[in-house]
Amino acid sequence: MKLATLKNNTRDGALIVVNNALTFYADASHIAATLQAALDDWANISPKLQSLAEDVEAGTGALKAFDQKACESPLPRAYQWADGSAYINHVELVRKARNSEVPESFYHDPLMYQGGSDAFLAPYAPIPLGDPAWGCDMEGEIAVITDDVPMGVSAADAANHIKLIMLCNDVSLRGLIPAELAKGFGFFQSKPPSAFSPIALTPDTLGEYWKDSLVHRQLEVDYNGKPFGRAWAQKEATFSLADLVAHAAKTRPLTAGTVIGSGTVSNKDENGGPGRKIEDGGLGYSCIAEIRMIETIANGAPSTAFMKHGDNVKIDMRDEAGNSIFGAIEQNIVSSR
Amino acid sequence: MKLATLKNNTRDGALIVVNNALTFYADASHIAATLQAALDDWANISPKLQSLAEDVEAGTGALKAFDQKACESPLPRAYQWADGSAYINHVELVRKARNSEVPESFYHDPLMYQGGSDAFLAPYAPIPLGDPAWGCDMEGEIAVITDDVPMGVSAADAANHIKLIMLCNDVSLRGLIPAELAKGFGFFQSKPPSAFSPIALTPDTLGEYWKDSLVHRQLEVDYNGKPFGRAWAQKEATFSLADLVAHAAKTRPLTAGTVIGSGTVSNKDENGGPGRKIEDGGLGYSCIAEIRMIETIANGAPSTAFMKHGDNVKIDMRDEAGNSIFGAIEQNIVSSR
Repeated sequence: MKLATLKNNTRDGALIVVNNALTFYADASHIAATLQAALDDWANISPKLQSLAEDVEAGTGALKAFDQKACESPLPRAYQWADGSAYINHVELVRKARNSEVPESFYHDPLMYQGGSDAFLAPYAPIPLGDPAWGCDMEGEIAVITDDVPMGVSAADAANHIKLIMLCNDVSLRGLIPAELAKGFGFFQSKPPSAFSPIALTPDTLGEYWKDSLVHRQLEVDYNGKPFGRAWAQKEATFSLADLVAHAAKTRPLTAGTVIGSGTVSNKDENGGPGRKIEDGGLGYSCIAEIRMIETIANGAPSTAFMKHGDNVKIDMRDEAGNSIFGAIEQNIVSSR
Repeated sequence: MKLATLKNNTRDGALIVVNNALTFYADASHIAATLQAALDDWANISPKLQSLAEDVEAGTGALKAFDQKACESPLPRAYQWADGSAYINHVELVRKARNSEVPESFYHDPLMYQGGSDAFLAPYAPIPLGDPAWGCDMEGEIAVITDDVPMGVSAADAANHIKLIMLCNDVSLRGLIPAELAKGFGFFQSKPPSAFSPIALTPDTLGEYWKDSLVHRQLEVDYNGKPFGRAWAQKEATFSLADLVAHAAKTRPLTAGTVIGSGTVSNKDENGGPGRKIEDGGLGYSCIAEIRMIETIANGAPSTAFMKHGDNVKIDMRDEAGNSIFGAIEQNIVSSR
């Protein structure tokens, strides 16, 4: 089933159930007022939502036209957002651009940071940027929402705690990252609010596209109206989403509604080298930092700038028939001043 | 006024108003069901809670005996927890123990990490520890809760967004920190859930104990029944709580219910040197890591161990008459296995 959260002038929005084609929806507030409320009691609530989803798919009941732009992120605010780095190619590129090795441990011990979850941006909301020198970048990712996960869960068991899947734009301020990471305590100011796809869907909805806790489809990132990234989300994933959930739960339980991200989806080139641009026949990049690393490796310096006021990023994923699966994230950079 | 959250078998507990002496309380659920609900509409809700608090203080209305052990942390789960390092003496000690300098920037650019906020421990809840080798430590801190804070707020304006004040035990797994910080993305597995004092109080409740966005009282940390730390929370604070709120809001707004921590409260010795133990006439330490640094500086190696199963930590703060202001945090270390 496909769930979404409509804007309704409250902090948490209103839960709705959307049909597979993303054309109409039914209000679900009689089952659970908000997505967090549904997740708080998922075992009891989800069968009722599933039943409503079947009615919606059959076209029965009170249905309304679905508008992605009327949506909040599925969880407009969440109790936890932790972002991993499943695609080590991204990390390898960063390191290669500065001539340093990837530590061996990175191939079995995932990188993960605790992100801010108090106010996610809506999927079509502008990204307020205080200063273009902050180096604003998109990061196209897969994200999952869990129910309650016990401390010390195995990766195999963690897979069963993945209840919903979304796309994510993990907005990053590259200009602030080096100095902030040098302080030793990780990201804070350099990671302003992320945005998520209009739809959060259950794993079964993806059918054969969901296997081994990875999404087996291409993540489509467009930048200023042109294809920028077409990486496959199942390729060269050193860690699955279940691995990342288990990593997060090693020393503590995770509360229902925890959002775990994959990190920037990133593929190597066919020949195993760093990925080429789409206009050069490659799969491109899910963030600007990567193209800058490729440029640095090739020419000694980057030539692509980070995002500036007025720039547009779109993140989407389509099925083989060309239909959007999650709805799109589409955001413009605006001045916050 | 003094607010608390009673356990009631729900995820967010029930909001109550407690008298100053912490002896009785009135249910506040007719005003706001939970503390988060109150914070979501603080401008409208807080005057009603204040009015109830006046009734409670006068002994009118339906009052019940207050039991700190029946409390959750004031926010049993929160949308944001960010912990600063206001007391740079703590950082200086860490650096001195390993013969490195504190970067000059640390005196005007606060250290801050994004913590997990999905499930805080109750103030009297045990601390589940998977493996004693993880090096479990307490950190006695001051924490504040904000309302909605705009992006780019000044420190002066940030002071007005501090709506509630608490004590905090920021549980840390010292054995996991070096390897985790070496990965470059900050704390994750090394920071399991924190606990907060039973009471969250408004700044005016502290009277002259709240000045310049600092609490002007001694933080009392007892370890296994003996005084361990008696540091003054206003002394040698390089940053105020308002400074830390402004730091957190530099690149993004903060949502109501954001919890910001001071970092471990830490004082220098009278002579300006590293603090002495309480049994040696000093003010002691608000975490075990500090006594280990002092021991390392003095003897080349630490002699005090981190916490093991069965150990007990108590964190409290009293007024001049000896009465607990926030109620105590008191936790035992237990095996999670």
